[in-house]
Amino acid sequence: MTEAEFIAALKRLPLHPAARDLGDDTAVLAPAGSLVLTKDMIVEGVHFLPDDPPGDVAWKLLAVNLSDLAAKGAEPVGVLLGYMLGDNGWDAAFLTGLDSAMRRFDCPLLGGDTVAATGARTLSLTAIGRAESAPARSGAQAGDALWVTGTIGDAGAGLAIAQGEAGPDTLLDRYRRPVPRLAEGRALAPIVHAMMDVSDGLLIDASRMAVASGLAVDIALDAVPLSDALIGHRKDNRDSRMAAVTAGDDYELLFALPPGTGPSVPATRVGSFNHGSGLLLTDGGAPIPLPDRTGFEHRR
Amino acid sequence: MTEAEFIAALKRLPLHPAARDLGDDTAVLAPAGSLVLTKDMIVEGVHFLPDDPPGDVAWKLLAVNLSDLAAKGAEPVGVLLGYMLGDNGWDAAFLTGLDSAMRRFDCPLLGGDTVAATGARTLSLTAIGRAESAPARSGAQAGDALWVTGTIGDAGAGLAIAQGEAGPDTLLDRYRRPVPRLAEGRALAPIVHAMMDVSDGLLIDASRMAVASGLAVDIALDAVPLSDALIGHRKDNRDSRMAAVTAGDDYELLFALPPGTGPSVPATRVGSFNHGSGLLLTDGGAPIPLPDRTGFEHRR
Repeated sequence: MTEAEFIAALKRLPLHPAARDLGDDTAVLAPAGSLVLTKDMIVEGVHFLPDDPPGDVAWKLLAVNLSDLAAKGAEPVGVLLGYMLGDNGWDAAFLTGLDSAMRRFDCPLLGGDTVAATGARTLSLTAIGRAESAPARSGAQAGDALWVTGTIGDAGAGLAIAQGEAGPDTLLDRYRRPVPRLAEGRALAPIVHAMMDVSDGLLIDASRMAVASGLAVDIALDAVPLSDALIGHRKDNRDSRMAAVTAGDDYELLFALPPGTGPSVPATRVGSFNHGSGLLLTDGGAPIPLPDRTGFEHRR
Repeated sequence: MTEAEFIAALKRLPLHPAARDLGDDTAVLAPAGSLVLTKDMIVEGVHFLPDDPPGDVAWKLLAVNLSDLAAKGAEPVGVLLGYMLGDNGWDAAFLTGLDSAMRRFDCPLLGGDTVAATGARTLSLTAIGRAESAPARSGAQAGDALWVTGTIGDAGAGLAIAQGEAGPDTLLDRYRRPVPRLAEGRALAPIVHAMMDVSDGLLIDASRMAVASGLAVDIALDAVPLSDALIGHRKDNRDSRMAAVTAGDDYELLFALPPGTGPSVPATRVGSFNHGSGLLLTDGGAPIPLPDRTGFEHRR
């Protein structure tokens, strides 16, 4: 598509009134309350595969940003898109997927920028949300329990399926069309001490919460919730659990609650915070060695 | 640099309090008044040259976004950076330039994202500003005069110099280190009918303002302000003026004022808006043919 064609197609997406029909260089927003801002870039060959369906890439680009908003208990206000123009079919399919995701998550477009370039597609999205209270990842306290929504590891298995392994579509969908936990985030924000989403892997993200809070964290590998689909596909043993907790793209919410407080949404207790530093992984109540790689990190 | 090293270096840049020391996934902002949001991506080989100094690339990435804020009369609040990690020297020099520009324009970091990828560097920035009134580009009225700040065409000549042509550093600097007209934008916003920055070329951007306002625009080529440096370098004739008005990267402010109203900052009257549609270019009072290309457009 040309830039003009792409912008004309963007105008058919849900537009925020502040976007001024995409006829201006900026969006102008008159907000009430606090704004939560987040930005993620995704690169072909790194965050998505060259043969991933473009509609799924669009869905995921929006979903991963909204997952950051969910972790702050924020309601989406709108997004700005940075798009690298590709071939017409890819561009059109991308827009169709983006349209579906924007309508599904009730999140309109505020503006953005398009560029024409060759090479690996690099796409960027800035998401803006509104929140009453935005829990930090640094607020966990010694004695707090560590909880997680949903199930862990499905998207990691889905990535292997996208790369050619045989496996069920349920898992592939969890990789390609993650669903940000927006309602859960809003319900949890007022009661948690700390919250973040699981994007790079349960172990690495829990470690980050512990480091930010100046605490140690222990995680019970055998308590980590796995889906029936994952257990059916990979069995339930230490290897499959270790693969699950070191895989990225779950987009579940990870949060710290004081002892004795239960979560306000379905969730599983997987560990606890303590004085000190570091990560302790247990299985059947006994410490086990940490894996070489606790999750996804750029240029580790 | 690794992602961790790059983030550690980012923490030494001016940080907005809402950035929470870059320790969280989102920035949380409690704004007063209206917010102006803009996002630009720049790609190596398209918007900057592979051998452009990385510090100048950083400066320009910030400046082009702040220029969009300037055109809305907005004061910068902060920015979110989307960065593709390159080699260590490039990353470090980029950060040094970004630091200079952020301090020069008093615009701290709110957050962002880094990715590791090969291929053409793709960098993205979202800028947020605060404005009392944010003039649209669509508000020009028939009879309004068209004005522009500063001088036109310096950056276009600077690009040719960056590509190997002999020429003065003044022009090269205008291409590599543009200065967004923030103070001028704030002074003009309350009195203009329409305003935008000149990023793709005076002719194409004036045409865009006319189209958005549902009007025709005429521009007097001989009234367009050229710098002494440009005149010294390229002489002052119809060819050099045509090159100036079709070159991009000026980042001057283009605005519509009612007849009889003078600008509140130094500026030059270059044309006027009329009923109808289209662009009329004159020289010495007589219409002249339009150039084949009126400015920079992706995949025109």
